[in-house]
Amino acid sequence: MKDKFYKYIENLQDTITSTLKKVDGVATFQEDLWKRAEGGGGRTRVIENGGVFEKGGVNISKVFGELPEPLRKQFGVKEGDFFACGLSLVLHPKNPFVPTVHANWRYFEMYDANGNIVTQWFGGGQDLTPYYLFNQDAIHFHQVCKSACDRHHPEFYSKFKETCDNYFWNTHRNEARGIGGLFFDYLKETDEFSIEDRYNFVTEVGDSFIESYVPIVKKRKELDYHQQHRDWQEVRRGRYVEFNLVHDRGTLFGLKTNGRIESILMSLPPIVQWKYNHQPKENSEEAKLLEVLKSPKQWVK
Amino acid sequence: MKDKFYKYIENLQDTITSTLKKVDGVATFQEDLWKRAEGGGGRTRVIENGGVFEKGGVNISKVFGELPEPLRKQFGVKEGDFFACGLSLVLHPKNPFVPTVHANWRYFEMYDANGNIVTQWFGGGQDLTPYYLFNQDAIHFHQVCKSACDRHHPEFYSKFKETCDNYFWNTHRNEARGIGGLFFDYLKETDEFSIEDRYNFVTEVGDSFIESYVPIVKKRKELDYHQQHRDWQEVRRGRYVEFNLVHDRGTLFGLKTNGRIESILMSLPPIVQWKYNHQPKENSEEAKLLEVLKSPKQWVK
Repeated sequence: MKDKFYKYIENLQDTITSTLKKVDGVATFQEDLWKRAEGGGGRTRVIENGGVFEKGGVNISKVFGELPEPLRKQFGVKEGDFFACGLSLVLHPKNPFVPTVHANWRYFEMYDANGNIVTQWFGGGQDLTPYYLFNQDAIHFHQVCKSACDRHHPEFYSKFKETCDNYFWNTHRNEARGIGGLFFDYLKETDEFSIEDRYNFVTEVGDSFIESYVPIVKKRKELDYHQQHRDWQEVRRGRYVEFNLVHDRGTLFGLKTNGRIESILMSLPPIVQWKYNHQPKENSEEAKLLEVLKSPKQWVK
Repeated sequence: MKDKFYKYIENLQDTITSTLKKVDGVATFQEDLWKRAEGGGGRTRVIENGGVFEKGGVNISKVFGELPEPLRKQFGVKEGDFFACGLSLVLHPKNPFVPTVHANWRYFEMYDANGNIVTQWFGGGQDLTPYYLFNQDAIHFHQVCKSACDRHHPEFYSKFKETCDNYFWNTHRNEARGIGGLFFDYLKETDEFSIEDRYNFVTEVGDSFIESYVPIVKKRKELDYHQQHRDWQEVRRGRYVEFNLVHDRGTLFGLKTNGRIESILMSLPPIVQWKYNHQPKENSEEAKLLEVLKSPKQWVK
């Protein structure tokens, strides 16, 4: 399974980066291969100063070896080896009318002293962070997420949509990071689902990514914008940074376990503003977004 | 003692803001008074888009009442009331040749069920974050810190300078946030020092702030700079954000205990950049700064 899923994310990285390169039209992805001293490594692909994407990364990595101390604590085991691999992407478009997107699909195995798999699971999801809200974009994104889920279980979408809203919550601001999507973790083998079923579900979600995001980019990338729109985008990007550095488990785990810093922090936006006590005008487009972030909506039924 | 110290920081806030206003020449401080539901409140003073200061805050606050849960845990007590007050300041100048500065001086009391003081202490310090390193500025800042310390104990400076270097360390980057200064905490009554001695020391340090920083600002604020200097300043400000959101105990404590967000996060810089894998050119001024941040120097003997 680990080889099969790694092969899958290798191919998916190729598909996504070649598609995004075409959409961007100006910049290409810079590739960095890196090795992890304790075992494994990754293939980081970053785009900067593009026609559409101001900054973004589509990274895969595979790490294995002895379970690091923080993971041993978290899983309540004394020793053991592990294997983990995944694809992570974040795209920060230049045009404030094009939303930022984040996605991650990953697989984890843990072994006993004889090298047998003790436990294995999939995790991941994708979520959208608009700066200006177009209802039809939000509906499109959620509809694609839902269709991928519905082919596997009628309750997956509502469950993973709710998990996503709860996870990407900036508690200190009492607002969501964006308008959500899907988030799932610890998808293990159960009586109902084999590990093959889990693989089929996660790869179906991964395969749906381009369809969920690229049509929105194409629709909005040529819209005219002014400095006031950029200012708002840059202020909202500050909230994105706050979430990633204060709350995001993946980022903090990476920072605290000696991960490759530049691959982890490629998620941070290129230009960000913090203004003191910034409040959008009443009834403005900016205020409309905030209202939705304060109480997440059901976009599709 | 609590009334005496609060009176002190009220006056110090006035002195510092009126001095900085004169230095800035363009902007004034906007004042916000706020109340804390559980007891206390603060006087936040923020400057933005000034002639010298792009963003900054000089805030005082006084909070009291029942000890919040995270503090009860930290101090290992089951119940009790507390009182805390302090002055916090961060200044982000526009000119990349003028360093950012941070300072904080605070006092804490904890009570038993009868309202008697169980323990009381002072804490605080001040530290400098340059974007371009002028040795004479670093020496000046540290010399003023040392002179204030030396009037109270011959070992205070070296001890609190080292604590500062250790505290403002971005572990995930393996580099210091800036070039340090002083950091001290839990300055309690001992056989050697009365609580009055502690008060005299902390207020001496507070009184030295203007002398430690303002001459540097005056000396550098008119220096010509180009976009490349701004870019470097904005990238380095990103490291400042990383420290404050990932590591700073004060910020995280504030965020997790329902403090006033806008007063806590006034410390974040106005405009920030994150570039992928940014490295300064060899032997450049930017590289020279990094070298010092990787291994903190002794600036004065």
